[in-house]
Amino acid sequence: MTTLSREVHLKSRPVGMPKPEDFEIVQVELPEPGEGEVLVRNLYMSVDPYMRGRMRMEWGPGTALMGGAIGQVVKSRNPAITEGSYVSHGAGWREYFLSDGTGMGEVDPALAPLPAYLGVMGMPGLTAYGGLLKAGQYQDGETVFVSAASGAVGSVVGQIARIKGSTVIGSAGSDAKVRHLIKEYGFTHAFNYKTADPLAELRKGAPQGIDIYFENVGGPQLEAALTHMRQWGRIPICGMISHYNDAETLSPGPRNLTETIYKHITLRGFVVSEYGDLQPQFRQDMSDWIKSGQLKYHETISEGIENAAAAFIGLFSGQNDGKMLVRLGKE
Amino acid sequence: MTTLSREVHLKSRPVGMPKPEDFEIVQVELPEPGEGEVLVRNLYMSVDPYMRGRMRMEWGPGTALMGGAIGQVVKSRNPAITEGSYVSHGAGWREYFLSDGTGMGEVDPALAPLPAYLGVMGMPGLTAYGGLLKAGQYQDGETVFVSAASGAVGSVVGQIARIKGSTVIGSAGSDAKVRHLIKEYGFTHAFNYKTADPLAELRKGAPQGIDIYFENVGGPQLEAALTHMRQWGRIPICGMISHYNDAETLSPGPRNLTETIYKHITLRGFVVSEYGDLQPQFRQDMSDWIKSGQLKYHETISEGIENAAAAFIGLFSGQNDGKMLVRLGKE
Repeated sequence: MTTLSREVHLKSRPVGMPKPEDFEIVQVELPEPGEGEVLVRNLYMSVDPYMRGRMRMEWGPGTALMGGAIGQVVKSRNPAITEGSYVSHGAGWREYFLSDGTGMGEVDPALAPLPAYLGVMGMPGLTAYGGLLKAGQYQDGETVFVSAASGAVGSVVGQIARIKGSTVIGSAGSDAKVRHLIKEYGFTHAFNYKTADPLAELRKGAPQGIDIYFENVGGPQLEAALTHMRQWGRIPICGMISHYNDAETLSPGPRNLTETIYKHITLRGFVVSEYGDLQPQFRQDMSDWIKSGQLKYHETISEGIENAAAAFIGLFSGQNDGKMLVRLGKE
Repeated sequence: MTTLSREVHLKSRPVGMPKPEDFEIVQVELPEPGEGEVLVRNLYMSVDPYMRGRMRMEWGPGTALMGGAIGQVVKSRNPAITEGSYVSHGAGWREYFLSDGTGMGEVDPALAPLPAYLGVMGMPGLTAYGGLLKAGQYQDGETVFVSAASGAVGSVVGQIARIKGSTVIGSAGSDAKVRHLIKEYGFTHAFNYKTADPLAELRKGAPQGIDIYFENVGGPQLEAALTHMRQWGRIPICGMISHYNDAETLSPGPRNLTETIYKHITLRGFVVSEYGDLQPQFRQDMSDWIKSGQLKYHETISEGIENAAAAFIGLFSGQNDGKMLVRLGKE
């Protein structure tokens, strides 16, 4: 018996800001799983800003896009993978797929709700954890500024720092999100980067300066962070979302990189793959913090594969509150 | 008996590129040294790009400018300092001065010629040594690019890396300097940044990419270095001379800082004061390399305090070959 599945393909590579017309839904027919294979039905998929970069060179028209997803194994001819189990994998943007199990990891729905494995318990959570503690060389009690602070990564960065005794400043793109940072996530100070002056806000929230700027955005917030940074400050660079949709002309970088010299500042680009070895400690810490109510998280879930492209595009105008997900099938 | 001395003062703080009219020579009359004091006659003073920064806020009209210098103690009423000895200190830009000896260190003219203590054996040498080995985390044999490579710091950076087995690429501001980098300092590849495309030159000199960019300049060379950098590359930021004379409008920074993310690149601003503890090893290494002929250095010496301001201004148009000094008195 074959299985009908819908997938999202690029129709053409986006130029500048991605548009709905850059994507198309393609129906495919999957055969029965062969010897050693499994058939997975996807339940949730993730959309993330990093995907924009992959669409520039790596991912082209003709095949399904890729990305983190959680699915259920509906048929297994692989003895290592149990039929009915839930798995985390990299084949998002499609409803069903066949796999030999490579790169798949089982997840336990009793430990945390399934969507959390695409957020705080998954890649964005580990990005926040490793980026702050390793790339940022965070020391307990240091003053931390994080941009895109209501996002999947930023909200975890801010909460980890708060739990560990820091003054935490966050920026977000709407007044509602700013209130959320204070009331829900316990930030010390927060501001709307679209209407406020970042440097004035940093001075208000951290009169003594900041030790770490967790960089998600680029642009004027990076400049303000450099200006207001203390001696020996660190800037872990997780992303620069304000630059991702630059088309022909790249926007200029910070005009005040010379601040790094007399202040001995370190900027450190990183990707989550560096932190695989932190996984056990990360899962333990996150689980403890979630269960004790110290760490909170939110998800914005779009319904159905037909809304996947719109959910992705929405990332760049801040339409999400917390991790942005797409539900591809019912649990 | 009093001593007549001439000093260089700021007449007004420079705006943008410093001009001769921003400086003035002031004659002062120094009394006999008091109890515990010494009278020093300066022989050589250093002019350095960092001084431009200090003129922005710290150093104002009404007092002599500061900077590294070598002098001879002509009168001593301090038992710790011998009359006739040679000293390294921070009171340049003047012919004579009185001091209680604070911050003064004796230098041995038998170990190295006196002017070398303002260059390869002094602050610029230690800047190169500490910046490459510590801020840059240099590993033997890595591929190194250094800008302002014929300068006091850059020429030492390139030679240390070459001595330790590296492919070394350098940029300088004239074809004569470029030839010098190859023939005199043993660089693998060199180019004139005023006429060549930095990225094309890096690709030519290091087809496999660069591991370290020792940053002295900023601007398009930093962008090219980021683009051509290998995974896990490091950028020790020593200076950004192309930005120092920005007046009201600061020039933009690199448009491709996002390169740092997927390549795990570290940028690290530093100042030489971090590396005081390296001093003994540094002096030993430099002395060995100089004596064995592996490490060469050049000086451009202007004559007389009346030419000090012009020598300083000349730094920004690359009028020096190697360390730029001013002779303030005969040895």
